[in-house]
Amino acid sequence: MRFCSNCGAPVALKIPPGDNLPRHVCDACSTVHYSNPKMVIGCIPEWRDRVLLCRRAIEPRYGLWTLPAGFMENGETVAQAALRETLEEARARVELTGMFSVLAVPHVKKVHMFYRAPLIELEFGNGADSIDVQL
Amino acid sequence: MRFCSNCGAPVALKIPPGDNLPRHVCDACSTVHYSNPKMVIGCIPEWRDRVLLCRRAIEPRYGLWTLPAGFMENGETVAQAALRETLEEARARVELTGMFSVLAVPHVKKVHMFYRAPLIELEFGNGADSIDVQL
Repeated sequence: MRFCSNCGAPVALKIPPGDNLPRHVCDACSTVHYSNPKMVIGCIPEWRDRVLLCRRAIEPRYGLWTLPAGFMENGETVAQAALRETLEEARARVELTGMFSVLAVPHVKKVHMFYRAPLIELEFGNGADSIDVQL
Repeated sequence: MRFCSNCGAPVALKIPPGDNLPRHVCDACSTVHYSNPKMVIGCIPEWRDRVLLCRRAIEPRYGLWTLPAGFMENGETVAQAALRETLEEARARVELTGMFSVLAVPHVKKVHMFYRAPLIELEFGNGADSIDVQL
């Protein structure tokens, strides 16, 4: 961040009064801009003893296999994010049966959360971010 | 958001190519600014059959009792955030024994996560954001 998103003036990185961490602060309009970790929400789509995986169509890790997951959006629940990402990336519908893992990745400022999720039916396909989807 | 935090030019709210949600987009430098939910991390500090609560010294809900919790910072794990907030707000040290709840609050763009957390010792006090702390 180099400019204030509220007023457009340059920001400076400094510790605001009453805080103990450096923040991007706008001296022109006094806005303090906080940066916080983002959530990546997904699931483990299961069918009998197999797991549905997506082959990434986007960077980073283009071409590698991964679970369906993506950034949680404003206005949705964690469960809605998992269902949406699974539908978008694997064209699959699942039932969420419980949280499998909550895993922070501090150096990239992310928290990954995955549900266990049996497939509701044996239907899936390539979503926008996948070049292949296979059980 | 009214101005691009990268170049300072005004931003417009529109759906970028390949996306399906409106984002703040800078036409000057082509940056797409994403806004995502923030995480509020805390714990339920237990001592025998009692729970340690903090009385808020800050808005919103000044003066009401709450569990120790606060915004997760970049560079920390979820567990570190819970321990830090408990120390900051209740001057208490706890052991995290498991996740109690993961609760999205979509209309305020937040996800609250709370651990079960027995107190390590019977010591606590008012932190910076608390006017009282009691078992």
